Order: sequence, then C-alpha cells, then structure tokens
Amino acid sequence: MLRTPHGAVETPTFMPVGTKGTVKGLTPGDLRTVGAGIVLGNTYHLYLRPGPELVREAGGLHAFTGWDGPMLTDSGGYQVFSLARTRSISEKGVEFASVYDGSLHTFTPELTTRVQEDLGADIAMVLDECPPADVGYGYHQESLRRTARWAERCKEEHRRPDQALFGIVQGGLYPGLREESLARTVEIGFPGYAVGGLSVGEPREQMLETLSLTAPMLPADKPRYFMGIGDPVGILEVIGLGVDMFDCVLPTRLARHGTALTAGGRINLRNAEYRRDLGPLDPECSCETCAGYSRAYLAHLVREDELLGHRLITLHNVRFTVELCRRAREEIVAGGYEEWARAWISRYTGAAA
Amino acid sequence: MLRTPHGAVETPTFMPVGTKGTVKGLTPGDLRTVGAGIVLGNTYHLYLRPGPELVREAGGLHAFTGWDGPMLTDSGGYQVFSLARTRSISEKGVEFASVYDGSLHTFTPELTTRVQEDLGADIAMVLDECPPADVGYGYHQESLRRTARWAERCKEEHRRPDQALFGIVQGGLYPGLREESLARTVEIGFPGYAVGGLSVGEPREQMLETLSLTAPMLPADKPRYFMGIGDPVGILEVIGLGVDMFDCVLPTRLARHGTALTAGGRINLRNAEYRRDLGPLDPECSCETCAGYSRAYLAHLVREDELLGHRLITLHNVRFTVELCRRAREEIVAGGYEEWARAWISRYTGAAA
Repeated sequence: MLRTPHGAVETPTFMPVGTKGTVKGLTPGDLRTVGAGIVLGNTYHLYLRPGPELVREAGGLHAFTGWDGPMLTDSGGYQVFSLARTRSISEKGVEFASVYDGSLHTFTPELTTRVQEDLGADIAMVLDECPPADVGYGYHQESLRRTARWAERCKEEHRRPDQALFGIVQGGLYPGLREESLARTVEIGFPGYAVGGLSVGEPREQMLETLSLTAPMLPADKPRYFMGIGDPVGILEVIGLGVDMFDCVLPTRLARHGTALTAGGRINLRNAEYRRDLGPLDPECSCETCAGYSRAYLAHLVREDELLGHRLITLHNVRFTVELCRRAREEIVAGGYEEWARAWISRYTGAAA
Repeated sequence: MLRTPHGAVETPTFMPVGTKGTVKGLTPGDLRTVGAGIVLGNTYHLYLRPGPELVREAGGLHAFTGWDGPMLTDSGGYQVFSLARTRSISEKGVEFASVYDGSLHTFTPELTTRVQEDLGADIAMVLDECPPADVGYGYHQESLRRTARWAERCKEEHRRPDQALFGIVQGGLYPGLREESLARTVEIGFPGYAVGGLSVGEPREQMLETLSLTAPMLPADKPRYFMGIGDPVGILEVIGLGVDMFDCVLPTRLARHGTALTAGGRINLRNAEYRRDLGPLDPECSCETCAGYSRAYLAHLVREDELLGHRLITLHNVRFTVELCRRAREEIVAGGYEEWARAWISRYTGAAA
C-alpha cells in the first residue's frame, strides 16, 4: 500500500503514462473507471510545454488535468538521454535540445526538483543519467557516482512536505555497480527507490538477472519502483521479484496502433481475421469497450483511423493492465503467486500450460 | 416530435454526423449524455467500408455502433456528387469512383434503398442528385425530374415497415423548379421531406430565400429536414423558417481543428490569448468539458494534437448545438422565438444587441 496526499494505492500498481498531462485519449473519469491507481506525468514534456509556470498557476498538474488521484512525475532525465539529439553532461547538469523546436535547455538537479514542485505530483524523482547498457564499466561507474551526487542535490533542493522525492538506482548490468549505486542512494535516504537504466534495450534475461540482484537489497519498508515496464509478462516477472510500482507507454501506445491485450495474447485488429468477428475484444474483460463493442466494429474504427478506435482500445488496454495487477495482488495475498503467474504467462504466450 | 422505432425526438433537432459509424471521438454514451436525439450515418462511406453485409450481419448500424437511439442514414447521393472525381449519371443511377481506392461502383435508387435497409436506420433517404447551384436552369430541371423518378423507384423498392423513407426536394435556386420538385415529391408521398441542394456554397441570403419559399409548401404534418446546416446562426435561421431536423459535420469538424462554439461566438483555442486562460471554455455551459477543464488545458491539448483535446471539444460543440435546439424549442413553445433568436445571434456574432 502506497499512501499519498491524493489517496492510497494498492500495490503492485501499474502507472499509466500521461506524457503531456493526458493519458492519450482518456479523461480522468475514464482512468478512475478502469481502476487506475496512480498516473505518471513527464517533466521533460511538461517543462517544455505548457511550462511549469502555467501548471503552477493552474494549481498544479492535478488541477490542470483534472486527475485528483495519486500522481508521479519523472525528472525528465530519461527523456533527455533518450530523445535529445544533442546533449552535454557535466557535473552541473545536462544540456539538451528540445525535441519540439531544437532550443537549448539545461536540466540541473535543482531545476528538475523545482519544476516537479511546480507540477506538484505526489511523488517526484531525482534527476539521473540513464546511459545505454553497453557504454562500458568505466562510464557506468562515473555516471552512477554523478547520479548519486545529483540525488543529494535534489534532496537538498526539495522543499514540498506534501511531495515525496524518490531516489534512483543505476549501474548498468554490472552487479558490483548496481550494489554501489544502491548503497550510495540508500545512504542519502529517500522515502522510495526506483530501479532505472533497465528495460532500455538489453535482453530480458539480463534485465531480470540484474533486477533480481538489486531488488532484494532495497529497503523492505519503502516502495520499489521499476521504471519502464508495461508488457503483461514483464509486469508479472518484476512483480515476482518484489517490485511495487512500474510504468510504461506500451499499453496506450499499442492501442493507438490497433493492438489490444487479451488473456489469450496480443491481437492486432488490423488483421483480416477480426474484420467480421462479432465477438467481444476480450471475452473475459468487463470494461466499457469489451461490454459494448465487437472486434469487427473496433477493427473498422482502427482501419479508418477513427479517434474512437484509439480511445476504446486504450481504455481496454489500461483496464487490462490494471486488472492484471489487481489479480497479482490477490494471488500474492493468497500465497499462490508464482504458480498463478506461470499459468497466466503460459496462456498469454500460447505456450502449453 | 419525431417518433421512431428507437424512441421519440423533440424537434427542432440537430443530428450529429457519424460518417463512418462513429461521431468522431464520442461514444454512444457521450451522445446520450449531451442529449443528442438522433444521429446520422453516411451510406456512401458505410457501403464502401465496412460494407452493408457486415453491418446487417451485426444486426444493423444500431447494434454495430452501440447507438440505440433514433438514427438516420442519407442515401449517399450527396457524397457521390461532392466527393467523387469521376462519375457518370444516367437514368439508371450514378457511377462513381470510391474515394478510398478509386474502384468503380454504381448507386441506383434500388441499391441505396437496399443498402439502407441493411444499415437499418429509423429513417432512410431517397437517392437524389445534388447539382451545384450554378449549373443552370435546364440542368436543374432535368435533374429534379430524374431525382423524382429515382424517388419513385426508391419507394417501390423499400420494404422495411420499421424504417421511414424520406423524399428530397431539389431544384437549385429557381423558385419554379423548387415548386415543381416539391409537387412531384409530395405526389409520390413520403412520411417526411428533406430540402436538399442548399447550403452547398451559394450565398446564405439565397439559401434562406429559397428555403423560405419551399418550406411553407411542405406538408405541415410531416417532418421537414434541411440537409447540411450546423452553424448556430444558420440553425436558428432555418428553425425560424419551420425546419424540424438538420445535420452538419461543422460542430464536430471545427472541434478537431481546435475551434469551440460559445455563447459569445467561436473561439479558436490555438490563439495565444487562450494559452493562459484558466477559465472554462464556455462559462454558460454545463457539459463535462466546461465543468472539468480550463481553456488553458484545452489549448495545451489542441497545440499538442492530443486525442483528448479533439474529444473534449467535440463533446462540447455537440452539446452546445443540441442545447441551442432545446432552447429554441422552449422559445417556440413560449411564443417568443423570433425575438430570442435575434438577440442570441447578435450576441454570438458580436453585433450590438
């Protein structure tokens, strides 16, 4: 259970991503209806547009967007390193070119902390560098130490008592560096910890191996946030390793490409087989989309690139992912998680159960 | 009051257009929430995609789309004449190239009637030719006579007792031809009549003049449908001339371009002045959009081309237009329509009241 000024969230919990202050296509009411517990906003995008001054003036991201439940903002670090074409990193911070207009900006630990205070989410994140897995031991070591110094500066800058600031563990795929990053971050002391720098292109096996070494060392009484996972199998795997929170654009992005998540696996509604399929999207789901529309109608909307298709499939995919977490929670409480998760994955991937 | 197998509709009524089986961005639930009474579907588009066979198999357009209220389909005639690049008209029907893939199709009065029976709306329309206003007297005369013969064939072909088939009056801007078209169409006998071939680019003055000559001659005990008007001023003007029903993509199309209808006139949310405007979209409107979001947030969504922006403004514009009709009805009943409409238009257009 994660407690925030905007309510408590049962864990494990999937955080739908509202990059620019909206989970694409959905209203806050929709998010509540599908049972979303906590929503994520991207500081990189919101800093550039519409800008933190306006959001602060509006009363924060909650008031601006109408979502009055728990909310988390990232620090923008990940976007700076994954989106920007030009950037230079120094002890002070990171300079980058806006993905919108190429204008130059510098994110420092102090700035991203202040910006996140303006945005006013319940949970803010420290500025971290998120290097690709393959940059080598030396770079990862140097980077995680700078990230730890940045984390200290973030904590020092952070003022809002109604906002929690989480630390982030880096260190690539090196067990020793993960351990060092974790020790340095925990030493600074945060009310929650994220594992960053994974699920960034490395093989799934390596990701899980690194996470399985890192997760048990995180303080047991603090929330554990795994950054950037949202496929059903990955979610169940990281939950199995003790993760409480995770986020990813996958369920919403897939939806906009016409792909729906179902208990029997992903289905792409552009495929000819769904064109005349008058059955529900996922017979086991009770969301508005599955209750009210056929695969054939959704396939028609997708082919015609109709807004309603994006919206209805997004609604379902978020509901599906939220519901998966709810089931996982039940199974954890009941004590049968491992077995249940194995059977669920077998069915989802089409492997023999 | 218009009675249909799917419920009664208070008139005058604006029909939101669900071109491809969806009012872009809105669910049937949204349409009910904003008070939409009757929704229009386009036979041209639905015939080409997903095809009438699939819609019939799904149980008709009501079951396929989830809208269980009153519905009207046009015959596709207007789209054939306005969208298609190549077409040839004969007594038999009209050949056209699909706007999707250029494939050749022929609409005959018999075919569009059968297709509309497959779609299964409460109201179907006869196939008509809708020539541009300026093709000349001779062409309009020839065309309206052919349209009358087509209307007869539509009526002969029409089978469904649970579907009303409406006739359409053409005749360009020539009073004599309008009179002839009206007499021929009424002679065939339909449960409702549309005025077509207006609001197709001619000056508003001429449109109103022609309508004001035509409308009073239509049977007083049958619904009068003016095809293709949806701007607030035009709506009030045609209501003033005795029109009961009208449709237009304008409110929904404007929304997708970031333009909202308000009591004080149209506002384009891309304009800089709305960027920091934390007030509601239309202070006098109680729709979900106006109740829950600021102009600044909507302006942000529009600038970022976010799905939610299209959706929320569409919701408002449909609600605004539906509400305008509801007010008009009240004023008609109260006996003060003309005065009220004049004042409303003055305020909307910014003229001195």
